[in-house]
Amino acid sequence: MYRSHTNGELRIENANQEVTLSGWVQKSRDKGFMVWVDLRDRYGITQLIFDEDRTPKEILDKAKTLGREFVIQVKGTVIEREAKNKNIATGEIEVLVKELTILNEAKLPPFTIEDNTDGGEDIRMKYRYLDIRRNPVKNNLIFRSKVAQEVRNYLSNQDFIEVETPYLIKSTPEGARDFIVPSRMNEGEFYALPQSPQTFKQLLMVGGMDKYFQIVKCFRDEDLRADRQPEFTQIDCELAFVEQEDILNIFEGMTRHLLKKVNNVEIGDFPRMTFEHAMKTYGNDKPDIRFGMEFGELNTVAQHKDFKVFNDAELVVGIAVPNGGSYTRKEIDKLIEWVKRPQVGALGMVYVKCNEDGTFKSSVDKFYDQEDLAAWAKATGAKAGDLICVLSGPANKTRAQLSALRMELAERLGLRKSNEFAPLWVVDFPLLEWDEETERYHAMHHPFTSPKKEDMELLDTDPGKVRANAYDLVLNGNEIGGGSIRIYDKATQELMFKHLGFTPEEAKEQFGFLMNAFEYGAPPHGGLAFGLDRLVAILGGQETIRDFIAFPKNNSGRDVMINAPAAVSQEVLSELNINITLPTE
Amino acid sequence: MYRSHTNGELRIENANQEVTLSGWVQKSRDKGFMVWVDLRDRYGITQLIFDEDRTPKEILDKAKTLGREFVIQVKGTVIEREAKNKNIATGEIEVLVKELTILNEAKLPPFTIEDNTDGGEDIRMKYRYLDIRRNPVKNNLIFRSKVAQEVRNYLSNQDFIEVETPYLIKSTPEGARDFIVPSRMNEGEFYALPQSPQTFKQLLMVGGMDKYFQIVKCFRDEDLRADRQPEFTQIDCELAFVEQEDILNIFEGMTRHLLKKVNNVEIGDFPRMTFEHAMKTYGNDKPDIRFGMEFGELNTVAQHKDFKVFNDAELVVGIAVPNGGSYTRKEIDKLIEWVKRPQVGALGMVYVKCNEDGTFKSSVDKFYDQEDLAAWAKATGAKAGDLICVLSGPANKTRAQLSALRMELAERLGLRKSNEFAPLWVVDFPLLEWDEETERYHAMHHPFTSPKKEDMELLDTDPGKVRANAYDLVLNGNEIGGGSIRIYDKATQELMFKHLGFTPEEAKEQFGFLMNAFEYGAPPHGGLAFGLDRLVAILGGQETIRDFIAFPKNNSGRDVMINAPAAVSQEVLSELNINITLPTE
Repeated sequence: MYRSHTNGELRIENANQEVTLSGWVQKSRDKGFMVWVDLRDRYGITQLIFDEDRTPKEILDKAKTLGREFVIQVKGTVIEREAKNKNIATGEIEVLVKELTILNEAKLPPFTIEDNTDGGEDIRMKYRYLDIRRNPVKNNLIFRSKVAQEVRNYLSNQDFIEVETPYLIKSTPEGARDFIVPSRMNEGEFYALPQSPQTFKQLLMVGGMDKYFQIVKCFRDEDLRADRQPEFTQIDCELAFVEQEDILNIFEGMTRHLLKKVNNVEIGDFPRMTFEHAMKTYGNDKPDIRFGMEFGELNTVAQHKDFKVFNDAELVVGIAVPNGGSYTRKEIDKLIEWVKRPQVGALGMVYVKCNEDGTFKSSVDKFYDQEDLAAWAKATGAKAGDLICVLSGPANKTRAQLSALRMELAERLGLRKSNEFAPLWVVDFPLLEWDEETERYHAMHHPFTSPKKEDMELLDTDPGKVRANAYDLVLNGNEIGGGSIRIYDKATQELMFKHLGFTPEEAKEQFGFLMNAFEYGAPPHGGLAFGLDRLVAILGGQETIRDFIAFPKNNSGRDVMINAPAAVSQEVLSELNINITLPTE
Repeated sequence: MYRSHTNGELRIENANQEVTLSGWVQKSRDKGFMVWVDLRDRYGITQLIFDEDRTPKEILDKAKTLGREFVIQVKGTVIEREAKNKNIATGEIEVLVKELTILNEAKLPPFTIEDNTDGGEDIRMKYRYLDIRRNPVKNNLIFRSKVAQEVRNYLSNQDFIEVETPYLIKSTPEGARDFIVPSRMNEGEFYALPQSPQTFKQLLMVGGMDKYFQIVKCFRDEDLRADRQPEFTQIDCELAFVEQEDILNIFEGMTRHLLKKVNNVEIGDFPRMTFEHAMKTYGNDKPDIRFGMEFGELNTVAQHKDFKVFNDAELVVGIAVPNGGSYTRKEIDKLIEWVKRPQVGALGMVYVKCNEDGTFKSSVDKFYDQEDLAAWAKATGAKAGDLICVLSGPANKTRAQLSALRMELAERLGLRKSNEFAPLWVVDFPLLEWDEETERYHAMHHPFTSPKKEDMELLDTDPGKVRANAYDLVLNGNEIGGGSIRIYDKATQELMFKHLGFTPEEAKEQFGFLMNAFEYGAPPHGGLAFGLDRLVAILGGQETIRDFIAFPKNNSGRDVMINAPAAVSQEVLSELNINITLPTE
């Protein structure tokens, strides 16, 4: 038996007990006549003591040889500590060691195994198995496991069935980002790894599964933006005989359950906001509503004077920065520089200081009087002491710019508190999205998303205005889940394909398979999918998903620990009838 | 709202309630003035009634048009049935329909959606989404979901952490059966899909995760024997600071938990049997111990007479067939034919009938007297009325043949009862296995499996005799799980590689990566993996895993429903710098 207790377990009540412990040497202090060792495992740290009066000499000598990260086993007696350590759960005791076995030696690790390590990201990725020993990473993985288990508990209690859908599927014609997998048994043919189990979950609804979920890996072979992974995990769900409202309620319940179980936070009903309102009020379809700073549209109160910039703009819009009135000229100039950076792209920024005495001081005083500026303050909700920042230009672009400024200022003002949670449903997404490049409409969600019945007639006259039965769950300014009620009847589906610019033949070629299944009695159905990596990161109060993945890949899609991907032997390629021809440049 | 209740929910207590139901038309009977419809969903069947006195005429008329598998919604009143159906939970009531909406029509399905369908396997695989509507398949999937959830409950309660290991990993030099995945971002390079997360779970132990599990898909590109799948699911587990006994206890507990929770069967301590004993007594390392028919070795009692066949044989071994004494000559001849089939391969079979009067009648009466045969009966445990079947030849081969016969007879005698569960640990597997072809030893489990300390000295003198700390969990004659205590120190590992015929350079090339990790303080560790597909099938009282997989592939690794694998476009191949050159024959 390697241990009678873990290193997080012993308390003052265990004093005088004989125990066996195993673990890693976190650190040791050698005072000559006495050696202390911090022994670590997943569960905590226990202090070991070796001293010349009470420990056999050869054991004390051996203790002096212990290096960091050695794996050892000790037997000894629990005793009360003289100098108690209130910071750790085992801090009232230590173990007086009588026997010591070195189970494994360790080379000096390339970085310190401590909460604040001296290792940079690259070296920690390469030695990920050592990084996992550190509390921050270890705790993230434990947290992730708990979130997944609570998701399963909640959904199982609601009669959901977890069904495993296949990983070796078929590449879709539009699957430009599919990973493909050559088959040995079927020469010259390929499987594809799923970008999501979308088709299969809809087939499960046709199959009468009624309530399906799965925590499942998905794959996308694309240029990785920061904080994306080629393999990622979804909580994938689909239900039959439901309307949008049923789905929102069930998954609002699930999210509430998670917040309670893993964050000990009680949240009431989630607010619901239309896509249109979110865009107008926050310039963003995933607004962070932990703080206000809502947009005030200023067209009516700012376009009646001689300020040409505003008069020519499609939209004039501002936000109030709480207590921003005290910003110095220099600080404001820096803010203006910030919005003019290429990543944001504003041409300039007008500001108004709301003085404590009720007067205003603005960068456009020569065009606007105090009464005008008071109207701006009213529209943006600015109070005495605040700063109003105003942008103008094409509506969509300007909203996006002001949204970026809003988030930046909130970050600087400490308004994005990681232990505060503000979930939100964004609903009524547009069905179609105009693509400038191809000059046609694309499905914003996917071609199986159903339009709102009351908007159907707009399909012919004003397709961009048609709203979909599509919804996103937003948490703290991040989209953590999204889905839709699907089309389930052939007529609507054909109409939809027509509006997406497919000929009937193209529609059949690309989607015929699911369409066939729909002919054998498809029930009304809908669903959604959560990004587990991001959900866990946000519940964990962080925004980087990589820290919540045991063995992540870097921005080039490489696992630097195992050095994958890699070349494979000519023998393997030949067996698969594959030749590699690299471009010669 | 599509439904107020499911179709498995209404009882006599609901009489007079107004309800809304949705589902599929299982069948309908049209009596002219009255129509009955069986409405089906995942939860059950509810009888609907439309009649000319109480149902509006246009609704009755519409009801007459309903075809099988139409998806409908009805509103009506729950009433007590005149002719009650005790076979279904809702059999005391029916719903008198007032409103009927056809949600979706259905073409006639290619096979009947009934427990005993008229559809053959091929057509059901092609229309798997319809097959899933049938109770046998649907219930299997629900059962699988429940087993997985109970596994997670048990392991989570034992402090196991579920960690997701990557699917896009590196092809190993010996990974001849790896699926490989070309990378777009890393030109000319490939990922591989994991055959198991073995390396990663051992790295998690080096990383201090202490108790890891994962329900995870694994992949193997090989000729598919019957009832194998190119993608399959494992319950993968690993623990640090454990000995074999700890692991057996924990997973015996897990299996007991499952049997209780999903089969309502209480099982006591699992018997443990050495590999050697299993081979000698059952001719098999995964014996079905739901029934006896243990082998009796007859060398000492059968090799002293003039029967040359036995005298020349390395092994003479028999089993007693309960009540087989009544077999006719013809039946016995058929049995002899059966063992002589190429799949079994025996050259012949000697038999002894144990008459009710205590005398014996054998096929070798001219060599053996009654006293001899009485000794055979004693050795095989045969009683009056039994039949003794005796095979002879090279020991291993003969044991395998008799094992096949034992299983066949048990099947015929109905001794393999699907609702009876006999788990068993088989322990002390050999560390090495002689490979005739390459004329060297191979690791029976894998090269990281540790040898038993007390057998270490045999490594040099008699390597085939060295036992490993390796174990299998056997249930009803199927291996459902297996694992080992791993080597965790460099010296033993190097010794092991030497005995497996690796040069130090080869060892480094093939296993250097994990070996490096072992240098930074690897704890003692071990684990095991269960085959979830098989475990679920056996707990479900069946032996075919395909029926417990939502979307299985056929013996050629094809998904005939979606027709995968398939050719991919030249465009995609070019992007991956891949050319296909099929052999021309």
